[in-house]
Amino acid sequence: MDATTRIEQALNQALARGETPACPPLLAEALRYSVFPGGARIRPQLCIAVAQACGDDAPELADAAAASIELMHCASLVHDDLPCFDNADMRRGKPSVHAAYGERLAVLAGDALIIMAMETLVHSATQRPERLAPLLLTVGQGVSVPAGIIPGQAWECEPNVDLAQYQRAKTGALFAAATMAGAVAAGHDPAGWRALGEKLGEAFQVADDLRDVASSPEELGKPVGQDEALGRPNAVATHGIKGATKYLKQLLDEAMASIPACAGEAELRVLLMKKAAKFLPKELAQQAA
Amino acid sequence: MDATTRIEQALNQALARGETPACPPLLAEALRYSVFPGGARIRPQLCIAVAQACGDDAPELADAAAASIELMHCASLVHDDLPCFDNADMRRGKPSVHAAYGERLAVLAGDALIIMAMETLVHSATQRPERLAPLLLTVGQGVSVPAGIIPGQAWECEPNVDLAQYQRAKTGALFAAATMAGAVAAGHDPAGWRALGEKLGEAFQVADDLRDVASSPEELGKPVGQDEALGRPNAVATHGIKGATKYLKQLLDEAMASIPACAGEAELRVLLMKKAAKFLPKELAQQAA
Repeated sequence: MDATTRIEQALNQALARGETPACPPLLAEALRYSVFPGGARIRPQLCIAVAQACGDDAPELADAAAASIELMHCASLVHDDLPCFDNADMRRGKPSVHAAYGERLAVLAGDALIIMAMETLVHSATQRPERLAPLLLTVGQGVSVPAGIIPGQAWECEPNVDLAQYQRAKTGALFAAATMAGAVAAGHDPAGWRALGEKLGEAFQVADDLRDVASSPEELGKPVGQDEALGRPNAVATHGIKGATKYLKQLLDEAMASIPACAGEAELRVLLMKKAAKFLPKELAQQAA
Repeated sequence: MDATTRIEQALNQALARGETPACPPLLAEALRYSVFPGGARIRPQLCIAVAQACGDDAPELADAAAASIELMHCASLVHDDLPCFDNADMRRGKPSVHAAYGERLAVLAGDALIIMAMETLVHSATQRPERLAPLLLTVGQGVSVPAGIIPGQAWECEPNVDLAQYQRAKTGALFAAATMAGAVAAGHDPAGWRALGEKLGEAFQVADDLRDVASSPEELGKPVGQDEALGRPNAVATHGIKGATKYLKQLLDEAMASIPACAGEAELRVLLMKKAAKFLPKELAQQAA
């Protein structure tokens, strides 16, 4: 089964558990709307890729880890789009959750996705109970205080922000959780996999900043020029387009160099370079080719 | 150590884990403000009381279970007070979290509390790893889809609502999680403890509805008359003050009758009746005495 099918099935299973007559129908609908159809599913893809490189001896656990990471990501999108944050009416080419279901259901859907992300790990760890605690802590680290994506977003509320610390938490933390959770799900020590996730996360953030200035709204599925409009710290403002593109390539090189020795190392490199090419906005990718 | 000290220590420990220099200072402050000083801590008190009735053979786990339940409760208060829900400026006798820290930090603090609630169970289950999964599922059930407190709140967004189902989810679910988690933490089967939590939860909801019409804002620490003002379904509207008071007493009787046979059964009964007396608004308690 390919990684995409595994991820979509695991996400569907996590959602289906709550879809009983006891659940308020609009909440169930908003939850499904928050998760499907997905974006690039880049974090869960990364999680499965690392699990495969590590032997993937418990695929149902790797799938749950990937789904857990993606549910956390979806929760963050739903809440970040709220009127009090980005006030974004569009996401993934359709109305954002609060635009479609109202602000109250958007708050509640995000809350539910966070807890469902943790529950999906518990349900899938019955065969490998000794991997449950480290998996929960790994996913938790990517989201929770002190340095997961929730505090990452909270840096936007501080008067003084260190750009590197902000970006490491806001994006890098969940990428690092993705690579590390892939390793834990396959019974490997996660520590060696942190750098790969952090570097790829930073690269993704820089690519996102580049797309925000160099893409069309059609390509992006949401408005462009938002970082400048909202005065958000970003790599293009710091380095310029050319400097940011160069920095992005450096980050990808560092990411590749950090991969720990493992059975599937060669295949992982090929896969990641293929995925990385999709990061760049079309125009820059052609220039870079 | 008395239950109150155990609960406050466990909550403090859960918060302290995130309070490192890596955490945005305002988020750390908002989290502490969301949890301290507490209200009656009735759910964690119930959790510890059941653990004690079941022998309390792993007190650090019972404390974590109690803290986890209370963190979930605090998260729900922070989000329920948001402008898009109750728009409440006061809570526990002080400005609500969004009134004090802004809407963005209130959303993020609620999110963080949910994940911290799950993490605190993981950190405390190292000596009893076999109790971790059932504890996580028990707490999860009280909060998540289909019938925890998040869907409970989401019933307010539905065009057609069954009052009993709404109240069972909105309040009963976390009370049931509290009694059941207390049992699981002490190595007992949780199933027999569900009814006690559900009945007490419903009793608490009825008492809350009564206080909303019969208390002063000073006694309550928040505005009174909110159910009627917001058109929320409530027991006083359905049964009247006298009928609701009678129903409350019936629920307490049923709760007591449901307690499973266990070593600390007698002490538990005494403790619960003492706590239950505090449920009622002062005036009604005097009438009932």
